[in-house]
Parts: sequence; structure tokens; C-alpha cells
Amino acid sequence: MAKPRVVILGGGFGGLAAAEALGTDADVTIVDRNNYQTFLPLLYQVATAGMAADNVAFPIRAAIRKTQTKFRLGSPIAVDHKNKTVKLDSSEVLPFDYLVVALGSVTADFGIPGVADHTLGMKSVQESIVIRSEVMRRFEDLCRFEDKTRLKIVVIGGGPTGVEMSGALAELVRGPLKNDNQEAAKLIDVYLVEAGPRVLPMFAESLTTRTVKDLEKLGVNVLLNTAVSSVESGRINFASGESIDSQIIIWAAGVKGSPALANLSLPVVANRLDTQPTLQVTDYPYVLAVGDDSGAKGANGRYLPQVAPVAMQQGRFAAKQILKLAKGEALSEFQYVDKGSMATIGRNKAIMQVKGIKIAGPIAWFGWLFLHLIYLLGGRNKVGTVADWTWNYFTFDRGNRNIFDSF
Amino acid sequence: MAKPRVVILGGGFGGLAAAEALGTDADVTIVDRNNYQTFLPLLYQVATAGMAADNVAFPIRAAIRKTQTKFRLGSPIAVDHKNKTVKLDSSEVLPFDYLVVALGSVTADFGIPGVADHTLGMKSVQESIVIRSEVMRRFEDLCRFEDKTRLKIVVIGGGPTGVEMSGALAELVRGPLKNDNQEAAKLIDVYLVEAGPRVLPMFAESLTTRTVKDLEKLGVNVLLNTAVSSVESGRINFASGESIDSQIIIWAAGVKGSPALANLSLPVVANRLDTQPTLQVTDYPYVLAVGDDSGAKGANGRYLPQVAPVAMQQGRFAAKQILKLAKGEALSEFQYVDKGSMATIGRNKAIMQVKGIKIAGPIAWFGWLFLHLIYLLGGRNKVGTVADWTWNYFTFDRGNRNIFDSF
Repeated sequence: MAKPRVVILGGGFGGLAAAEALGTDADVTIVDRNNYQTFLPLLYQVATAGMAADNVAFPIRAAIRKTQTKFRLGSPIAVDHKNKTVKLDSSEVLPFDYLVVALGSVTADFGIPGVADHTLGMKSVQESIVIRSEVMRRFEDLCRFEDKTRLKIVVIGGGPTGVEMSGALAELVRGPLKNDNQEAAKLIDVYLVEAGPRVLPMFAESLTTRTVKDLEKLGVNVLLNTAVSSVESGRINFASGESIDSQIIIWAAGVKGSPALANLSLPVVANRLDTQPTLQVTDYPYVLAVGDDSGAKGANGRYLPQVAPVAMQQGRFAAKQILKLAKGEALSEFQYVDKGSMATIGRNKAIMQVKGIKIAGPIAWFGWLFLHLIYLLGGRNKVGTVADWTWNYFTFDRGNRNIFDSF
Repeated sequence: MAKPRVVILGGGFGGLAAAEALGTDADVTIVDRNNYQTFLPLLYQVATAGMAADNVAFPIRAAIRKTQTKFRLGSPIAVDHKNKTVKLDSSEVLPFDYLVVALGSVTADFGIPGVADHTLGMKSVQESIVIRSEVMRRFEDLCRFEDKTRLKIVVIGGGPTGVEMSGALAELVRGPLKNDNQEAAKLIDVYLVEAGPRVLPMFAESLTTRTVKDLEKLGVNVLLNTAVSSVESGRINFASGESIDSQIIIWAAGVKGSPALANLSLPVVANRLDTQPTLQVTDYPYVLAVGDDSGAKGANGRYLPQVAPVAMQQGRFAAKQILKLAKGEALSEFQYVDKGSMATIGRNKAIMQVKGIKIAGPIAWFGWLFLHLIYLLGGRNKVGTVADWTWNYFTFDRGNRNIFDSF
């Protein structure tokens, strides 16, 4: 029997997990617009100069080297469901028996005016380099003008990304930038803005209370119950009618399924593919939806969170389903195994919640470091990251604060 | 006595050496258009995916932290010699008693048509990321089309930069790219083009013969006595009337003093400042010229080479001269101490010439590694680079082959 031909759209956590699980049992091609996987959970470290940019990217071809998986650089522009082919922006046409959609997500602005034009996103290596460069450029302005103008850096969104970003920014300001120029560093304020009543709502209340205290200890101004109504150049307007002037506005309030889903001639609901519990797209049994684009729901009847563990579990599951489909076997339903959540706030400061167990402080922090290293693809990235982190930890310095965003 | 006010234009090897040597004996301000020093001798490693881009950059503020040296991000646009001030593009006006000009160099095209428009330079982190990205993108094209179209990468200039670049490109193709896709890698040709009769003319003939052999072993096509007459899009024309089609043309044929010298109201000869043996600019005794911009000549009556050791020695020397000038002491004349030259060709392949001693092979190669690590500013960059190089050496892989050039 010929091996099933599988095209996987997207080489992120979900797509790579699917390819790895298919291994040599299928004829697999991964398509991605980048030639590398982006390790999104650590982009905030690039944005705050804690890690070299190259260390959060891992060449997809290196990841798939052991199997006979093929790779194509490109984005899907159309799917011909009659002939089962996908067309790429490079004009290539790839035939498939099964299609895995794992295109990931983009920044969601929830229709709030000005977000797209006046805020900095956190969804790519380039965006994180832009944030780093913008922070360092504004810092140099403070050093130059010596006129007590304050620089307000505002992070919008109290999820893990926003918490980690604001904590790391505050540490950058209080550590390396203070050592660089104490007077200028004193002029920088870091804000974290959250529309709801607490940050990190997926954690127990005791842990989120602790998180806010930890952030405030680092000097972050945490504004809860503060919904953004619009953003202008240099200003954020709140639903309360108040506003805040800010020169650097970072949008970490949420993500939505990839707009490229619209090119696939598949049913899309709420920016996700309409997905069955088997991960098959409704009415398209040969298409499986994985990760941020998947409309599969959890036991509580709600969409699963758009995080790496879901994508990786679904990727592996989709691979097994495809092999079953090829053999004519019955499919099972996907069940997400929540292994717990963790978030880091700063040096020795993190929270971790696994089943009923709640941990905060250095143990959670070292656990966070360890798990992120394990999941960082590629030995070289691991080694380089350990080097960066060890250096940062013992010297209180961050050596990657280079302005690199203009080409 | 008040400390002399010194403005140093340029935070490269020369400017930083001057700042360090002045230490706290002067009121020093460094001006640079980047907030980091670029470690130019290793840019070819970024271009060929051997090192993370952040590791060839070192924050200037971290380099000057121990002294009270100030830093300004910007470029000089005018010098007022009557009032002894320098104006920056940020509109700041910096007063000085002594001015050190260490602005470095830019790519020289020697007036050859098409070079500026159709070749890739090697003078900045960004340019090296562009080369890396362009090589990887073209490689993906080869993987995509599978039609035997060959990709010719041509490096023009047989000096150390051209030799190191072409050797590292050939190793990238024969190692990681071959592992990624053997058929596609076979379609790539690397050329090194030199106008003169031999590469690396600063070395003994026995070493340059060895270098050409080593390059050819790696698969580089070395073309000697091949002067370029013009460059078009995708094609290089030679003085002989022949031409070669090339999709990636890298220009490593030479550098010239910074065009920003024209803003300083100082005498410029042959793209360098007209400089006395004391390093003072002719008729401007309070201005000292350091490194690639200096018109100081060697014992042979010719300009000194535009390399890091000259800049560093001149930077330290200029600092001493300034302290003598401030005390009214007599000045001495700069004498370059040539500590020898080295160039690397590839794994275990390098040449080294110190006084009369000539070494080629693994010992020279490890010597090259060791010296470049010693001179790489900053412990974090050292650690990260050791990690990258160790990884590359034992795995024959290069993990930084990410396409990062579009923002």
C-alpha cells in the first residue's frame, strides 16, 4: 500500500509534532512561510534583551532531518478540494490525501480602533526585535535629553505573555539600564493593563494575587479592571474615559486564528476551523485542524486555549488519526490532557499550578527554566540559551540589547 | 586642573580602545550611530549561519560601564572648529577640547559600475543577515523547483574577508545544506574572484598557495587575475570580456574611509584624514585620527592596513597623546607593531604568519579561534560563541540559518 500523502500547513509546535509522529509512515510535506520554527513562549525574552534572537528560531529542515519529511517555504493561497491539492504563493501545487491545518494565530485587536496602527505585537521574531530596538532607542533619547520627560511603556493584556513581558521589562530597567545610566532609567515607567478583575485568570486566585505583588515589587504599575477603548499615536484611551500617554504600547491582549484560513475553502467559525472532536474539519474528513486554528472544544464545552501544549498534543493526535483513516480504522476523539500552567514574573519569581498543587517562588521559577529548555528544539539553541541565562543570572546584565530593526 | 573634554566619533575597535585608555583621566563622550560595537572580523560567520547575530554585537554602554564615559547615539553632521563643538544628527551640540575621529570605513566600489546596486556588502550585522537570508532563500528555491538550475554564489575580493567568506560558504553548502537536501546542495557553486595574481597578498606565497588548495578542496572555484569591470543584476562582467551569471554577488574587494569625514571640515586625502605621524590631523592639532579613517603611514611610506589591530593600537596611542597635549608635553610618533596576520579557510584550516614564522593547518586554526574569542568583547558573547562553535564543530551543523531580513 502506498504511503498516504500528507501536507501539513504550518511548521510550528502543532505542525512539527504531527510530522514527527507521522515519521516515515507517510509521505509528508511541511509548508511554512518561515524556514524556521518560532519558539513563541520566549519571544518576550528577545524583546527584553535576555536572549539572542537566533536562539528562539530553529530551522525546520533541521527538525525534520531524521525522517524523510519534505519542506516548502511558502503560504497556502488556495485548496482544490475536488482534486485534493493545495496551491502555494510560490505557484507550486502540492497534491495530498490528507491535509493538516496548523497555521497558528495572529494578534487579535478585538475591533478596538488604533491597535493595528499604534501598538507593537509579540507574534514573531521580528516583532520582538522591534520592541527591543524601540525600548533601547527611547532609552537613548532619555540619556540624550536629560530633561525629566518620562517614558511610559505600557503592556496591554494580563495573560501569561503580558505578565512575563512587563516583569522582564521592569527587570531590564532596574538592572542593565540602571547600570547604563541611572538617571535615565529612573524616568521609565512600566505598566501592565488588564481589562478583567485579575491577571492570569487560568490560575488560582492566590497565585494571581501573588503575581501582582511580585510585579509591583519589580516596579510594574498594574492596572486591573481597565479596558482599552482606543489607541492613538502615543496615547491609550480607556473605557472609563481616562487615558494614559505612552510612547511604547505593547499589545499582548489576545490572538485569533490565522487569516490564511480564509484561503482554504473550509468552514470557519470565530476565526477557527469548524472542527469535530476527531479533529476533522466538519464535512471535510480528510482535513485535520491542529492548534490555534482548531475549533475543537474541551470538556467544558469551550474552545481549548491557544497554547503550545494543546498544539503539540493535537499534532501527535492528528498524525495517529491520519494513519487510522488510511487503514480504514475507526477514529477516536481528542481529549486535552492539561499538565498544568506556569508563568514567570522575574528572577526567582514564577507561579506553577499542576492539578491541585500550587507553587510560587524560586522552585516554580527553576521549573519554568527547566521545562522551557526541554521544549526548546535543537541542542544549539539549548546551549546558547543556557549560556545567555546563566550570564544574565549571575551578572544581572543582558547582553542582547542591540538596536537591530532597521534594514 | 579640569579634565580635558574628549569627544570620540565612533565606538568601534579604535574608539573603544581610546575611551578605555583615557579611562577617568578625561571627560569622555563616545558617539556612534549604533548602540553596539560590531565585531566586523566575524560578520562572515553570521552570514554563513555559524554564529548568532546578537553575538557579534556588544552594547557600547556595557563596554564603557567601568569608566565614567558617556555615550550618545547619533552621527556627526558638522564640526565648529572656532568654538570646538560637534553637532549630531539628533541636533545635539557637544563641546570638546579634543576630538578623536574613529568613524571606520564603508564598502569601496572603486568606481566599478553596478557594484552599489547589485552586490551585497559585508560591513554591518544587517548586511550579514541579508546575505544569510538570501543564501537560504535561494536554497529553498532550489529545493522547490528541482529543475537543475544552478545557483552561483560569487565572492569578489581575495583578501581575508573574501577568503573566509568563500570558505565558510562552501562548508555551509557541503555540510548543513547537503544534510538538508542533497540534490539541491549539489546545484550550488561557490566562486572566489580576485583581480590580482594571488589571494591574501599580505601573506608569504607558500601560505597563499596553500590557501587556494584548501579552498579548492572545500569546493570553492578560485579565479585569480580576474578583474571585475561591471556588475549587472545577476551577472558579473570581467575585464577580459568574459562574464559569469550569479544570483548572489558578495562584494568583499575593499573598504574606504567613512563618507561622514566630509562633514567634519577637516582635510581629507584619498578618503582618509590628512594625518601627521603623531596621529594629529594636519593643521588641526586637537583632532586625532584613528583606525580606518587615519592617514598615518607605516615605515614603508604607505597607508597602514584598515584592520582592527591598527585601530586598537592607534586608539590607545591617541588617548596617551591627548593626555600629553593636556599637560603641554611633547608628542611622540605612532609606530604600528605588526603582531602578525591570520586567516581562516575552514574547519582545521587556517594560516598564520608572525614575524618570519609561517603556520598552516589545525594549529593556526585553533590559534585563530582563541584570538578571536579573546578579542570578542563581553563575556556573554564569548560564552554564546563558544557554544555555537562547539556545536558546529562536533555536529557539522549550523543552527542559525534563519531568514530574518524582512521587517
